[in-house]
Amino acid sequence: MSKGRLYGVGVGPGDPELLTLKAFRLLQSCPVVAYQSADDKESVARSIVAQYLTGKQIEVLYHLPRASDPQEAQPIYNKIVEPIAAHLEAGRDVVVLCEGDPLFYGSFMYLFTRLSDRFDTEVVPGVSSPMGSASALGVPLSYRNDIFSVLPATLPAETLAAQLLNADAVAIIKLRRHFAKVREVLHQVGLASRAKYIERATMEKQQIIQLDEVEADNVPYFSMILVPSKSQL
Amino acid sequence: MSKGRLYGVGVGPGDPELLTLKAFRLLQSCPVVAYQSADDKESVARSIVAQYLTGKQIEVLYHLPRASDPQEAQPIYNKIVEPIAAHLEAGRDVVVLCEGDPLFYGSFMYLFTRLSDRFDTEVVPGVSSPMGSASALGVPLSYRNDIFSVLPATLPAETLAAQLLNADAVAIIKLRRHFAKVREVLHQVGLASRAKYIERATMEKQQIIQLDEVEADNVPYFSMILVPSKSQL
Repeated sequence: MSKGRLYGVGVGPGDPELLTLKAFRLLQSCPVVAYQSADDKESVARSIVAQYLTGKQIEVLYHLPRASDPQEAQPIYNKIVEPIAAHLEAGRDVVVLCEGDPLFYGSFMYLFTRLSDRFDTEVVPGVSSPMGSASALGVPLSYRNDIFSVLPATLPAETLAAQLLNADAVAIIKLRRHFAKVREVLHQVGLASRAKYIERATMEKQQIIQLDEVEADNVPYFSMILVPSKSQL
Repeated sequence: MSKGRLYGVGVGPGDPELLTLKAFRLLQSCPVVAYQSADDKESVARSIVAQYLTGKQIEVLYHLPRASDPQEAQPIYNKIVEPIAAHLEAGRDVVVLCEGDPLFYGSFMYLFTRLSDRFDTEVVPGVSSPMGSASALGVPLSYRNDIFSVLPATLPAETLAAQLLNADAVAIIKLRRHFAKVREVLHQVGLASRAKYIERATMEKQQIIQLDEVEADNVPYFSMILVPSKSQL
């Protein structure tokens, strides 16, 4: 019996209509659908595609623990992929859902590095959140000879300041409890007036809030700050 | 009579199946479809969606001249948008096709900055080429606390070298006649062994070539070098 095929499928930033035609086709045809969630929460990736599921599919939920030490987490990650590997061994194709794009700060990468040597693997790219946020905000992000950078808000304030001044356009991700630090840095380097904050871009509960009016204690995971290019078009 | 609505629609990196469901819906329902091409060439964006066009739509082709001086080009750009503005004035919705994502190094931005004040405008984000290339190459691009940068190959060699060392993962775009310079810089900074070259990612004529085997005189516009993160997953 031949093994199943593994598909890492980007489901885009949140609006279910931002799924690709290919993702939609695979979602309708694969017998197994896997997705990740935080321990106590609904899977966002699953909620994005819920209306497209056939109701006849096997669903596999997995949890990726937050690992401060990647080395220590290796055995945990290795164990997480096993239920998915078992379906593939049994000849069943598996779609793994991933918010945004699977290989761009995506949870699918933990599966990819462990399973792509053992099983036929295909990645279906998706619309990534910086592009979803730019479209929702209606701001051209970067053009011509611009340098564009994605900066995790987890970086130290001095690094963020240097990186903000190093690029022409920036997306700051993983804001959550780092928001206050990021806002302060943006003011320090003189970029606060150009910065745009958005949460849950393209989702039903999307919110665009003035940077200085954001409640720092209340910033969700799906939030982002864009500093669009100031080049002339 | 109410004016038409302007849609800037990303059609993704090349594979027609990487269109979003929303782009597909608009493409089937809008009476006017506009797209850009180089003077003597077929529009790539149109060729990506050719199979989805209804055959009953008005098509508008426009040319964006390459402008070394953006200031001088302003009157030219202003004139280019007029045929599209005329359809909108006449109450017809217009879809403007854009390879990749419309607001991320996209040609749509020249229209957006000139028309979004005059007409209702909506941007539909698309799968961008760095994500399309990463999926075609099968390489995780960036994760965790990585800094990811997009670098235009048009930058001077010294700037490219500094920027390559500044980021954890990089996509180098606009390679074409700058390829030889970029390859040399990658060797200089010790990143050549990690760099992956791909042309026409996700298109029918996609090619993955070892960096040192690429013919520098023969690099198409739709090409890219990725330097994926080396972080451990």
